[in-house]
Amino acid sequence: MNTAVRTPTPAAEARRAIRTGDWTSHTSALADGYVQGNVVILPRTHADDFLRYCQRNPKPCPVLAVSEPGRPELPALGEGIDIRTDVPRYRVWRHGQVESEPTDIRSLWRDDLVSFVIGCSFSFEQALLQAGLPVRHIEQGRNVPMYRTSIATEPAGPFSGPMVVTMRPMRAAAVIRAIQVTSRFPEVHGAPVHLGDPSLIGIADLGRPDYGDAVDVRADEIPVFWACGVTPQAALVQAGLPFCITHAPGAMLVTDLLNHELASF
Amino acid sequence: MNTAVRTPTPAAEARRAIRTGDWTSHTSALADGYVQGNVVILPRTHADDFLRYCQRNPKPCPVLAVSEPGRPELPALGEGIDIRTDVPRYRVWRHGQVESEPTDIRSLWRDDLVSFVIGCSFSFEQALLQAGLPVRHIEQGRNVPMYRTSIATEPAGPFSGPMVVTMRPMRAAAVIRAIQVTSRFPEVHGAPVHLGDPSLIGIADLGRPDYGDAVDVRADEIPVFWACGVTPQAALVQAGLPFCITHAPGAMLVTDLLNHELASF
Repeated sequence: MNTAVRTPTPAAEARRAIRTGDWTSHTSALADGYVQGNVVILPRTHADDFLRYCQRNPKPCPVLAVSEPGRPELPALGEGIDIRTDVPRYRVWRHGQVESEPTDIRSLWRDDLVSFVIGCSFSFEQALLQAGLPVRHIEQGRNVPMYRTSIATEPAGPFSGPMVVTMRPMRAAAVIRAIQVTSRFPEVHGAPVHLGDPSLIGIADLGRPDYGDAVDVRADEIPVFWACGVTPQAALVQAGLPFCITHAPGAMLVTDLLNHELASF
Repeated sequence: MNTAVRTPTPAAEARRAIRTGDWTSHTSALADGYVQGNVVILPRTHADDFLRYCQRNPKPCPVLAVSEPGRPELPALGEGIDIRTDVPRYRVWRHGQVESEPTDIRSLWRDDLVSFVIGCSFSFEQALLQAGLPVRHIEQGRNVPMYRTSIATEPAGPFSGPMVVTMRPMRAAAVIRAIQVTSRFPEVHGAPVHLGDPSLIGIADLGRPDYGDAVDVRADEIPVFWACGVTPQAALVQAGLPFCITHAPGAMLVTDLLNHELASF
């Protein structure tokens, strides 16, 4: 294929702006329609356990791609991706604590690092909106509310911890449609894991999320809970590894995949 | 195709027993795995309105087949079906009242009668059970609870009235799976129409269904409501036509279609 004359995709344009340092903020407004992913980078010695952790917990940890050890490319997600420069802002972790939030990790790169990109609910939220369904935190201009639950993930090696969920309130007819819509997207958390009474999954107060912002839940609405990509990050923090790197909250990897390409039927 | 040596299907065997008068009872135990249908037979002068009513209300009135006027065959549903003899028990209606419950309607047959066969939730209940989901009224050996709702159907000609729904209580994770399973079966009512608070669709007391039997709803369960094939029958009664015929409750037409053939994906 002759790539010399190809017009860059909006995703490639976004990555270029990020790589050059022109964009260092969150990515929610970038490259509309393209899949964005959570990023986890860790030494090979822990990568196998982490991959098994993701395999055992596919709803909160849907793996879109894993790199070769030491290689910054992720060819399955986009031509020319360099994971060392193409995320707007990183978090460098030492023993479970954030050490720094750089915009480039080339100076930290090692030959044993393995990169994971994990699906994110941005993709299915686009499908919800296109189906005419309400996404309250978007309506209210807030971050999605996230809660630690009493649902334990399946451990693997040092990785374990509670499933974290996002919550979107809807009326019953919209709940039914939202289950149909998100079931088509198993690689970005898929169908909900719970709906209705929050206390049944260990959530004491919807008004006090563990991450993100609270949103309004109206009297005729049902809270619906989806597995959240913060789950593997929480497991990573809990593991207290000597060294790992993640994206900073909201500053994701923009890929060349289109959201609708993830639809399973 | 050489049909002379074909072994009769369990569905054909069931119809034979019904036709000969050996079986005059409800059909729930017959021809496991085969689609059963609600039957409505009415004069051509009302058939067009009724078909439009069904078209406008596909969730409660999913039409599996419509006969030619005056013809007792339904070739789309099974070889050799004779709608005048192949239903165990009929209800003959005059001006909205049951006149008789014969086991054969050959003596009432007219050249202008049109037969409708409408999908029934038996088909998706098999899929729910195969998915390991609870179907409470089956567990409790009862008829499914049915309720008239405040959801109005779209009228057509003399046909109108409230949507009637069935209710099956489940825990949240099962609700999500049940929505996925039944969404695959649009020809037998498909996905639920409501879940959660019954009062939002005009149901005052789950313990007092309008048809069928009440079932237990446990504290951690959510009631889930599906559109019900009693809806078109209620519209038919409400229309008070001079003459029409339906199947008697529970005594359905057994077809040659397999339930799993109705799955849309």
